[in-house]
Amino acid sequence: MRVVRTVEQLRETLEYMRQGGHTPVGFVPTMGFLHEGHASLLRKAAEMSNTVVMSIFVNPLQFGPNEDFEAYPRDERRDLELAEREGADIVFIPSVEEMYPQPTRTQVTVSSLTTQLCGASRPGHFDGVTTVVSKLFNMVQPDYAFFGLKDAQQVAVLRRMVSDLNMNVQIVACPIVREADGLALSSRNVYLSAEERSQALVLSHSLREAREAIQTGQVRTAAEVRGLLVSVIESSPLAVIDYAEILSFPELEPLDQGISLNEAPGEIIMALAVKFGRTRLIDNNVFIPKEVAVLV
Amino acid sequence: MRVVRTVEQLRETLEYMRQGGHTPVGFVPTMGFLHEGHASLLRKAAEMSNTVVMSIFVNPLQFGPNEDFEAYPRDERRDLELAEREGADIVFIPSVEEMYPQPTRTQVTVSSLTTQLCGASRPGHFDGVTTVVSKLFNMVQPDYAFFGLKDAQQVAVLRRMVSDLNMNVQIVACPIVREADGLALSSRNVYLSAEERSQALVLSHSLREAREAIQTGQVRTAAEVRGLLVSVIESSPLAVIDYAEILSFPELEPLDQGISLNEAPGEIIMALAVKFGRTRLIDNNVFIPKEVAVLV
Repeated sequence: MRVVRTVEQLRETLEYMRQGGHTPVGFVPTMGFLHEGHASLLRKAAEMSNTVVMSIFVNPLQFGPNEDFEAYPRDERRDLELAEREGADIVFIPSVEEMYPQPTRTQVTVSSLTTQLCGASRPGHFDGVTTVVSKLFNMVQPDYAFFGLKDAQQVAVLRRMVSDLNMNVQIVACPIVREADGLALSSRNVYLSAEERSQALVLSHSLREAREAIQTGQVRTAAEVRGLLVSVIESSPLAVIDYAEILSFPELEPLDQGISLNEAPGEIIMALAVKFGRTRLIDNNVFIPKEVAVLV
Repeated sequence: MRVVRTVEQLRETLEYMRQGGHTPVGFVPTMGFLHEGHASLLRKAAEMSNTVVMSIFVNPLQFGPNEDFEAYPRDERRDLELAEREGADIVFIPSVEEMYPQPTRTQVTVSSLTTQLCGASRPGHFDGVTTVVSKLFNMVQPDYAFFGLKDAQQVAVLRRMVSDLNMNVQIVACPIVREADGLALSSRNVYLSAEERSQALVLSHSLREAREAIQTGQVRTAAEVRGLLVSVIESSPLAVIDYAEILSFPELEPLDQGISLNEAPGEIIMALAVKFGRTRLIDNNVFIPKEVAVLV
């Protein structure tokens, strides 16, 4: 495994790998402080690619002024151990100066998909994501790029960007990885106190209950599902709901209120963002209601 | 020379050329209705590249609602003859549907460089340019891309985009090509009546007079140069000035009013946009005032 810190070293190393025939190239962009979710992306990348590149970069552009850019957890030594163990060939760890030698005047923006959910709560967040991912794609020129479905909106936005701009890369979305008790893995989970950690289980519990209630026919409309999600989450005294939404996926458009979910044509997403103290957690479930119904 | 009309054909043809070792790849994006200015870009591309790709696409995204998208002159047969004669290997002529199978939600924007000159007169124009050029770059993945300096602001904007987004391409700027009497070549010159065509010479004349006046010390400040440009252009009764500006290049920032141009540190641009009837023409001159002064 080679660790590179400059764009030039990265390009040289990739050129060497390509000339040696070690293609396709798979790419796993991360902000570091890696967990089993990232490990699952690396394993998928290793399965599909002959060169696996991971980047570790906490991108200031995608953090709001009052967000946790400075406090975001970092542990390079541990990250490198995990990357090596999970089969990364190249780890790219640029400084902020290497990524932004001058303030960027160029932005890549995706409209409409970015106005709701995390886009509404975190203005400018997705512009920062699409801009830095465009830069990283231009540096790595991967055949495949791997993203976790915990950030389902990010997957939807990046797929649209790739399609609209004819980028020569395939976005591979990988399932959410959870703790044994259901909590979705996140680098931000370390912020949680013991009590918050315990109450944070309402996210995954509410999603599971909603799925079951859809299956058994207890709830039928998006409004009813939302009501159920909210009532389960509010059973936690520490939970402060940022959003709880049911939308089409990947279009992220509202479903007709009132119609039965089973009549929705494609995939839908139940998406949650909930604060516990200063920590904001997200979780979601993407599924096809018709197929869930068929399982009953 | 191969003519391709779909992104898939383009990628396949390029893959074949690359596997045959015909690299580097040079790219000349155009809107067609080719003239000697485009021919000079193709010749430069052929000099620097082993595969020359030209695209012909009148991009609706970069035209305003009251601009000449529908009327923009087109002549595919003549364009293909010129492309063949000047050494193009691949000509890519996509339909609007091929370029935009669905309305794009993704935009590439460059700020600040796009707020003045043509950016001020044509809101959204450069967003359309940077978005379509990003798409074309992703399709062609060229080593070099060739643009004429008549659109000097476009060159400045695209260089900034390439640098900010780490695109793996070098922008090669080529000199303005002029008629024998000085008129800068433009596909839009065909719109001019005989009388307008004759009076349009004030653009190149005013730029030449301003250069000479700087050299001889007759004018020293940006304000004085602007005054001279305006007075020469206004000697044409049909000319309606859109802008006449003196800015730093490629930053496109105003120079300190009052200071002598010879104290400006780098390159400057004298940039003009003038309407004759319904036809808007642009012209410019990029130079280093110090070096001009040395010539005296």
